[in-house]
Amino acid sequence: MRTYVYDFSEGDRTQKDLLGGKGANLAEMTRLGLPVPPGFTITTEACREYLATGSEPATLAGEVNEALARLEAVAGRSIGEAEDPLLVSVRSGAKFSMPGMMDTVLNVGLNDQSVMGLAAVSTNPRFAWDSYRRLIQMFGKTVMDVDGDLFSDALDEAVEAAGVSGDVELDETSLCELVERFKRIVVEESGDEFPQDPRRQIEMTVRAVFSSWNTERATLYRRRERISDDLGTAVNVCTMVFGNLGGTSGSGVCFTRDPATGTPGAYGDYLSNAQGEDVVAGIRNTLSLDEFRQLDSDSYDELLSNMDLLESHYRDLCDIEFTVERGKLWMLQTRVGKRTASAAFRIAVQLVDEGVITIDEALGRVDGAQLAQLMFPQFDLHTPRTTYTHGMAASPGAAVGRVVFDSATAVQWAERGDKVVLLRKETNPDDLGGMVASEGILTSRGGKTSHAAVVARGLGKTCVCGAAEMHVDAEGRSATANGVTIHEGDVLSINGSTGEVYTGELPVVSSPVFCYLEEGLEVALAHADADDDIETRELILAVDRVLARADEARRLGVRANADKAPDAERARALGAEGVGLCRTEHMFLGDRRVLVERVILANEPHEREEALKDLLPLQRSDFIDLLSEMDGLPCTIRLLDPPLHEFLPDHADLRVRVAVAEATGETDHEAEKLLAAVERLHEANPMLGLRGVRLGLVVPGLFSLQVRAIAEACAQRIQAGGDAQAEIMVPLVGSVVELQLIRDEAEVLIAEIAADTGVPLEIPIGTMIELPRAALTAGRIAETADFFSFGTNDLTQTTWGFSRDDVEAAFFNDYLEKGIFDVSPFETIDVDGVGELVRMASKRGRETHPGLHLGVCGEHGGDPESIHFFDEVGLDYVSCSPFRVPIARLEAGRSSILNR
Amino acid sequence: MRTYVYDFSEGDRTQKDLLGGKGANLAEMTRLGLPVPPGFTITTEACREYLATGSEPATLAGEVNEALARLEAVAGRSIGEAEDPLLVSVRSGAKFSMPGMMDTVLNVGLNDQSVMGLAAVSTNPRFAWDSYRRLIQMFGKTVMDVDGDLFSDALDEAVEAAGVSGDVELDETSLCELVERFKRIVVEESGDEFPQDPRRQIEMTVRAVFSSWNTERATLYRRRERISDDLGTAVNVCTMVFGNLGGTSGSGVCFTRDPATGTPGAYGDYLSNAQGEDVVAGIRNTLSLDEFRQLDSDSYDELLSNMDLLESHYRDLCDIEFTVERGKLWMLQTRVGKRTASAAFRIAVQLVDEGVITIDEALGRVDGAQLAQLMFPQFDLHTPRTTYTHGMAASPGAAVGRVVFDSATAVQWAERGDKVVLLRKETNPDDLGGMVASEGILTSRGGKTSHAAVVARGLGKTCVCGAAEMHVDAEGRSATANGVTIHEGDVLSINGSTGEVYTGELPVVSSPVFCYLEEGLEVALAHADADDDIETRELILAVDRVLARADEARRLGVRANADKAPDAERARALGAEGVGLCRTEHMFLGDRRVLVERVILANEPHEREEALKDLLPLQRSDFIDLLSEMDGLPCTIRLLDPPLHEFLPDHADLRVRVAVAEATGETDHEAEKLLAAVERLHEANPMLGLRGVRLGLVVPGLFSLQVRAIAEACAQRIQAGGDAQAEIMVPLVGSVVELQLIRDEAEVLIAEIAADTGVPLEIPIGTMIELPRAALTAGRIAETADFFSFGTNDLTQTTWGFSRDDVEAAFFNDYLEKGIFDVSPFETIDVDGVGELVRMASKRGRETHPGLHLGVCGEHGGDPESIHFFDEVGLDYVSCSPFRVPIARLEAGRSSILNR
Repeated sequence: MRTYVYDFSEGDRTQKDLLGGKGANLAEMTRLGLPVPPGFTITTEACREYLATGSEPATLAGEVNEALARLEAVAGRSIGEAEDPLLVSVRSGAKFSMPGMMDTVLNVGLNDQSVMGLAAVSTNPRFAWDSYRRLIQMFGKTVMDVDGDLFSDALDEAVEAAGVSGDVELDETSLCELVERFKRIVVEESGDEFPQDPRRQIEMTVRAVFSSWNTERATLYRRRERISDDLGTAVNVCTMVFGNLGGTSGSGVCFTRDPATGTPGAYGDYLSNAQGEDVVAGIRNTLSLDEFRQLDSDSYDELLSNMDLLESHYRDLCDIEFTVERGKLWMLQTRVGKRTASAAFRIAVQLVDEGVITIDEALGRVDGAQLAQLMFPQFDLHTPRTTYTHGMAASPGAAVGRVVFDSATAVQWAERGDKVVLLRKETNPDDLGGMVASEGILTSRGGKTSHAAVVARGLGKTCVCGAAEMHVDAEGRSATANGVTIHEGDVLSINGSTGEVYTGELPVVSSPVFCYLEEGLEVALAHADADDDIETRELILAVDRVLARADEARRLGVRANADKAPDAERARALGAEGVGLCRTEHMFLGDRRVLVERVILANEPHEREEALKDLLPLQRSDFIDLLSEMDGLPCTIRLLDPPLHEFLPDHADLRVRVAVAEATGETDHEAEKLLAAVERLHEANPMLGLRGVRLGLVVPGLFSLQVRAIAEACAQRIQAGGDAQAEIMVPLVGSVVELQLIRDEAEVLIAEIAADTGVPLEIPIGTMIELPRAALTAGRIAETADFFSFGTNDLTQTTWGFSRDDVEAAFFNDYLEKGIFDVSPFETIDVDGVGELVRMASKRGRETHPGLHLGVCGEHGGDPESIHFFDEVGLDYVSCSPFRVPIARLEAGRSSILNR
Repeated sequence: MRTYVYDFSEGDRTQKDLLGGKGANLAEMTRLGLPVPPGFTITTEACREYLATGSEPATLAGEVNEALARLEAVAGRSIGEAEDPLLVSVRSGAKFSMPGMMDTVLNVGLNDQSVMGLAAVSTNPRFAWDSYRRLIQMFGKTVMDVDGDLFSDALDEAVEAAGVSGDVELDETSLCELVERFKRIVVEESGDEFPQDPRRQIEMTVRAVFSSWNTERATLYRRRERISDDLGTAVNVCTMVFGNLGGTSGSGVCFTRDPATGTPGAYGDYLSNAQGEDVVAGIRNTLSLDEFRQLDSDSYDELLSNMDLLESHYRDLCDIEFTVERGKLWMLQTRVGKRTASAAFRIAVQLVDEGVITIDEALGRVDGAQLAQLMFPQFDLHTPRTTYTHGMAASPGAAVGRVVFDSATAVQWAERGDKVVLLRKETNPDDLGGMVASEGILTSRGGKTSHAAVVARGLGKTCVCGAAEMHVDAEGRSATANGVTIHEGDVLSINGSTGEVYTGELPVVSSPVFCYLEEGLEVALAHADADDDIETRELILAVDRVLARADEARRLGVRANADKAPDAERARALGAEGVGLCRTEHMFLGDRRVLVERVILANEPHEREEALKDLLPLQRSDFIDLLSEMDGLPCTIRLLDPPLHEFLPDHADLRVRVAVAEATGETDHEAEKLLAAVERLHEANPMLGLRGVRLGLVVPGLFSLQVRAIAEACAQRIQAGGDAQAEIMVPLVGSVVELQLIRDEAEVLIAEIAADTGVPLEIPIGTMIELPRAALTAGRIAETADFFSFGTNDLTQTTWGFSRDDVEAAFFNDYLEKGIFDVSPFETIDVDGVGELVRMASKRGRETHPGLHLGVCGEHGGDPESIHFFDEVGLDYVSCSPFRVPIARLEAGRSSILNR
């Protein structure tokens, strides 16, 4: 027969599935001989059976009774006994800690009789009545579903009636009256009496804990955190101990190391004559552990020795709750403690140095999200500040600057030395210059994968986007949110890690870890030493140690998405092993736009050819610069991807220009000419239009120009003694024939250039896999491709049928709330849909072309969870924005070790 | 050892893979004892080996020599013999007849000596020299790659110099000189002499035939017709016989029945003293077979008896070429003959009645494309006509009407009794009323799957679209093409079957087959009998017989896409077994648009609720009408699919209105208000935006309104004694959670309405599978779906990543020419990509939900080739536009029988 109840002395910490996290750790401490108040755990299996059938397992009541009898025997007191009652706490405890579930009911076992006994035994009647009052309040609210406000309102009235300043000052009489009042509330609201039978109290509480597993909030939390609905929760029943029995009692919370900084040594808070909840509530000032020692050195010594034991036993930072009851120390809870990013790195490496864990285990104790946090400057949040508005935390960091409303102004002001924040409704490719010139970008539209967000992350610029309550009046050069209007030149501080935006200037602390990553260990340590900052020194060294191990362990290569030489330079400094994606369209912007316009507006083939010819030396020199920076490493260059009309002005703008000119009796010839071109190229859905390889096949000479520029750049670099490793990537291929046609033409051209220059050229030609059809027919495509690079942004758009420009703001929040997404599929790869295509294409591609090189160059290439997936699928490398290269290195290493 | 050469007497008609079509049929005729001139076939295997290795199989030359020796033995003459040379023809003959390949070289074996012998033996020197001249010309051009114009120019000069009217009048001397001239041309152009050695002539010709397999035109043709590149061609070498040896000689082409009408009895043309090519060239007037009998009754009798033999042997209409050489009949070629659509149906059923084939075989002899042709009215092309322009044949039929440039005018003119043709740049959903009112639609933009084309096919309206050379000036109410300007009210005749557009009115012949399909056998026969039209009577009966068998045999159900009751009525008449897709958005147009605007422009929830409430009775009554028409049959009703902004005016139009008002010192409040709404809803890629289930989840009350209308309509119908079988279909689902959320809400609502009305309601709820992710995760989705309906239009768009609105005109023609597509994937399902997803989703869906009902409601549901694919995959039904229902019935039946 299945056992549903385990005494704390029976379990251990490996049994979290069965006993929940709290129960397993209580059992572990008991097993270690630590002073845990006796108690028992009702298993998650009991919960699951209750949820499945609607009633407790038949044998549960009997087992609980037996366990209670054991508790009573140990305590020498009985539950419900009138003279000296045994009281218990009842707490939920699932495998993973989970908000939204019923938490705790204390003082279970008190009733109208036993409260007298407790008063007598404790020689503290006020304490006894207060405990009873708390039980009825907690029980009424959480078990009997009575509106909690009714109790707190009654409490407030009692405080007022007594003319005291708070409930701690209420005397025994007031508390007695309050108990009666609370009992009446329970009857009135629930229709039932507060149960006097302690066993009934326990039974009802256990059932309430079980049921709370399926509250809406808990269900939603699980969906978001990807916790299975099938786990269920355990329930812990534990003998009550009291920290509020006078000056020799108290409660505390402590950590075996400082969880904020990682500094070694015990760290904690203690509150005399208080229960655990009072410590957390922060009503009174707590004492430090040093002060606790002065108060009660015996308990302190015992606590410290327990902490040492727990840390070496758990081999990690432990978070501990304890109570001293009349001089006797009780351990109430422990778990591996949460910590800040810097503490995580420092503690992990400290434990390696102390011989407690291996460096590989240390790698498991940190993650890319933590490293990302450490790379960005932060606001000094000790400074007072005024919130202006908030949006989505789109690209982390802290930026301060004067607000500008267009890119030209951003560039102009930045050139004269101003720090600026570019504020726009939304950005577009023309804003690139302005974004580069700015400290940060703030938009009122678009989500985490909007243009602003994606480009900002690529540039390492702070960005808050989709600040929807802000109304932007670009023409009027102002923006209004919550009644406050910001004008051009006003200073804003934007926090890209939280999405908060503040008026005025907040002080910013720069990132020593970023300094280390970009400029190297020596430079970073020198800065720390100059400031005599030992914690920072240790942090830098810790990051260095962990990252070195990650680089050693990882199977996945890490490249960067870099469009120009300066990006490539930065990427290489941050550890990129090549360029995985150079978007040549970014070379067509700015001054060169006029050349592209000539290509588009050409009436005759020779006009187009001439315009293309004028572009050639510019493209070639771009590629020479890029290949120089990445000398000796591969550079995957993607041929032109976006639709041509993106290089022309906006259609509606032109129509307005033409119509306004007409209405005022004039003619705007230029606008009319451009309008004709834009209308010719107009597409209802440009994302699904004439772009990528389609453009290459339809516009004569366009791809050839680019292939020529690449091949000539390689030849020149090689002639100059360099090691140019360009790769040509064809975008948006859906059929092998498309790739074959481009490949055939490119190969002829490359051979010609090799012959002309006398330089042997071997330039691999591959394709993006960014359409479902490409993934489905990857076996055929692989026959003619040297490599695949998964364009998971576009693949996500087509697999789900939504474009990130349009839908993030429109419904992603709704979708996250409704649990349709755990996380935006543009942020972390959708393993079941898009991931399935990646897996299928990898398999089919390698089946027909075993040596096929596989990479990914979508945004997901820099996302920790996605990187683990790509490693598992067997890709050869990920490519991400330069600033995410260290994160990708770390996660690729973690993936190798964790999935070994 | 492999045999590469087969005498005609060795093969048979089953060996088309090895001997090619022509060779296999020559062998078959030889085997039947018909008088075929002796000859042999070089196999496709020899060709394949030549193409793979660059040289003929080592044993080929020897085998050819042996075969020639056998020919010589039979003929009693030798090849190259000076006195009485044996001449041969060399012809290509692949498995499938294929333009672009080298065709024929006649008179091989002639040279400077043997031409004299031929002159002597034939007693016709002019004939001999003309034969030699022809050999050098054909050989020079096709085998030695000399520009053919050089020969024809020289021939023209000789005609001029001789002062005669044509080459048939050139005398022996002139022809002698021409032979010399031709030989000089060959040397000058190719650098080589015309080969005098007959064996070398044969060898070179065979090699040229082999090589012609890979000409660009042949390759492209194969790609389009989906013929494998691996087949190769055979080569037929055949003893020459001459129809041009005087009055007792001649050549002819004949059919065993009339291929134009299907009327039984031999049918053909004969030309005295002529070669086969002269018959086809139509230089002289041919004789009928009756006239041939009067000329040469022996040959005629023998031919007729041969024709009977061939038809009963091939069990089908045969197409025959023959020559009479000095009174002796020779059979030169036969094959199963091509025929018109009406001949196909009539002949198939005639053969059944004659006991030659079974009715199932008859079903294999006709197809949906033929039936489609028969369903549409046609222009009487005997009438003289003036072409105005041409575009894509988007929806077949012949339409005549006065041109109008907007829908309102179309409706107005049609109401007063005018027949109109709606001429627009392109159409949009607002044009629906105008399209309904028009005889036909002509657009200057968009391809075969543009809005105009799709809606026209749905409505059964004639449509020519993408007439790109036509410039439309809608404001000026005129359209200009090729210098001709059409004004509003002018009459155009448009041919939707060919894409031709004519000025003025062409007489139209209505379709008796369509009359039969819609109004039934009796009505159609009565019309035919009234006209005393026996051929039409036979055609109607033939279609009826074949279609009845198809209905009996098919496994696939056939439903129709019908949005309103009149569509459903027509669909049911044409044999639809339910509605597979009712697009409720079409119910939101016209007058109701203002209600939708209220939904969109609502500032407060209660405003939206009120607007939705006003829509409820309208929707409900639409559904009641639809369910009445389809009483007893399933009606799948799709919840609102398109983005809301489609119901508002165009963004650029509004911006122009606002700007022009401002520029002229006024304010257009209405435009400003609408503009704000449009901008709020504006999407860069509406196809990938907030639509379908996303809209249903985000806009409160929208889907509930529709579900309520459906459920209430069902309840009312059932209360009234009807048999309402509505099914609710959720569009654009990508995740099972989306469907589950809608389903949960709908089930509650339906149960409520069932309870309120006391009518038990069982309304299946299913989903479109129109996103790759839906197909990939179909296993999960099936757990919560009663049915899947594949939306292959959208699935094609997302799988390929192109929207049909944008790309068809932009690059589909290029793609077809380059062989990337065989056919537009919007027309016939892309089996390798989109089809793979359909297959996968069907399999995965049925794995988790074995009873899952599967259908397709995209355009492909009415496409013959696609229907066979859907049958093979195991779908339960296809749904197509009402007018394609008979075609789908026929093809579903054919698929059952052909794939049995």
